Amino acid sequence: MSAFEHALTVRFHEVDPAGIVFFGRIFGYAHDAYEAWIRTVGFPLEVPIAERGYALPLAHAEADFHSPIRGGTELRVFLEVLSIGTSSFTVRSRILGKEGMRHATVETTHVCIDPAGGRPRPIPDDFRAAIEPYRTG
Amino acid sequence: MSAFEHALTVRFHEVDPAGIVFFGRIFGYAHDAYEAWIRTVGFPLEVPIAERGYALPLAHAEADFHSPIRGGTELRVFLEVLSIGTSSFTVRSRILGKEGMRHATVETTHVCIDPAGGRPRPIPDDFRAAIEPYRTG
Amino acid sequence: MSAFEHALTVRFHEVDPAGIVFFGRIFGYAHDAYEAWIRTVGFPLEVPIAERGYALPLAHAEADFHSPIRGGTELRVFLEVLSIGTSSFTVRSRILGKEGMRHATVETTHVCIDPAGGRPRPIPDDFRAAIEPYRTG
Amino acid sequence: MSAFEHALTVRFHEVDPAGIVFFGRIFGYAHDAYEAWIRTVGFPLEVPIAERGYALPLAHAEADFHSPIRGGTELRVFLEVLSIGTSSFTVRSRILGKEGMRHATVETTHVCIDPAGGRPRPIPDDFRAAIEPYRTG
Repeated sequence: MSAFEHALTVRFHEVDPAGIVFFGRIFGYAHDAYEAWIRTVGFPLEVPIAERGYALPLAHAEADFHSPIRGGTELRVFLEVLSIGTSSFTVRSRILGKEGMRHATVETTHVCIDPAGGRPRPIPDDFRAAIEPYRTG
Repeated sequence: MSAFEHALTVRFHEVDPAGIVFFGRIFGYAHDAYEAWIRTVGFPLEVPIAERGYALPLAHAEADFHSPIRGGTELRVFLEVLSIGTSSFTVRSRILGKEGMRHATVETTHVCIDPAGGRPRPIPDDFRAAIEPYRTG
Repeated sequence: MSAFEHALTVRFHEVDPAGIVFFGRIFGYAHDAYEAWIRTVGFPLEVPIAERGYALPLAHAEADFHSPIRGGTELRVFLEVLSIGTSSFTVRSRILGKEGMRHATVETTHVCIDPAGGRPRPIPDDFRAAIEPYRTG
Repeated sequence: MSAFEHALTVRFHEVDPAGIVFFGRIFGYAHDAYEAWIRTVGFPLEVPIAERGYALPLAHAEADFHSPIRGGTELRVFLEVLSIGTSSFTVRSRILGKEGMRHATVETTHVCIDPAGGRPRPIPDDFRAAIEPYRTG
């Protein structure tokens, strides 16, 4: 299955005095793609957790930075699901620039929890079915 | 009465490629001082609005930028209350650098509203009494 | 002349615990429109100031906040030039939501300076000609 | 050797509508500690790279999130050097809350490069000597 694609342009004020984008913001770009994707598959983040009955906080995040990102760059983020377990899933976002230049690869692991007690619980079937088509692993 | 003083250091990644702090962030510095002040006078922002019974959203904000702010600069923000009306108040934050260098002056006007309907309502007496000592106008 | 239009979607993590967008970020939305516009008219921000020969820092910014902005909202920003003087110009960005809901109006005044000494200097003719078509005032 | 300690307070607008701090910002907290530490050991980030002769971009960053961080929380970040190689080093920041509550553990790997060509080069001796006392690994 193909990855989810998200486009964005680096803003001038996202670039630091050394001329490159701060790494914390690169995680933000990956999350922008995640947010657009999760909306596309039918589970927008702004639905209140109380209404949803579960939350999907991050347990882990990591990134490899291949080449610096500069201001004005048009980026494309390709998001895919690396794995889906009983109560967690891992997403990978590859951040590319012009002519396919590799800038960064970000992975985030989300755990499905019961919002009341904070304990892991199984990923709901409808959510699992919605993200399954983006699984590549 | 003297102003409330708040100290902060400009972070490297808050500075843009032109070597100066993005203006939106300068409003953030003023808000940092506001948040520290409102905690000091006994009304920390993180008390839920449902529990508090009113909200204090901004109706207006403005800033004059006197001189650019650069990375690593240690800033002092001096916050004072310019005016208190029936249902709104205005705060001024002067942002100074080394040796009193004037960087920016920020003013924000907050309106006390009923969170249910969003209508203005009188500022509660205890909140009014808490901020009154910082009034200079 | 018609205004410049810029579209954006409010990100989940741009919304605070009270459910609304932090005001400093609303200035950021206006600046996103400014950055897209200035690129469109041929003067992208990432051209180094040394190469350009002048800088356009903000001298003043202000905003009226008409109604709160919530997560997931699709915004349209309409940017127009309110005035152009010898060495400064003022831009107004109206930030609208669904069905034309007015959220905020932001005005920023930029001063053309000599980057070496920081003194005001006349706006270059080519820049003036590029922004003139967006003047409404 | 003991770790470098950095204190900070979570700002209200750093908390999302689910009541917790966005993960990208947690990397920012770790970087705040890094920036304070690197200044303390005598190599503040704002020294221009041209003057310094080398740059220290991130090659990798990762974090484990142990418990959510909420608004108003006072955090302490403990930074230590996990390893120092010929041309790279890895820093670990443990982010703790009240009564030692573990919130997150962030690791970042920095590579020393020649700013001209972008190639790895040996870490300069004076920098190595400055960070060595914080090595725990």
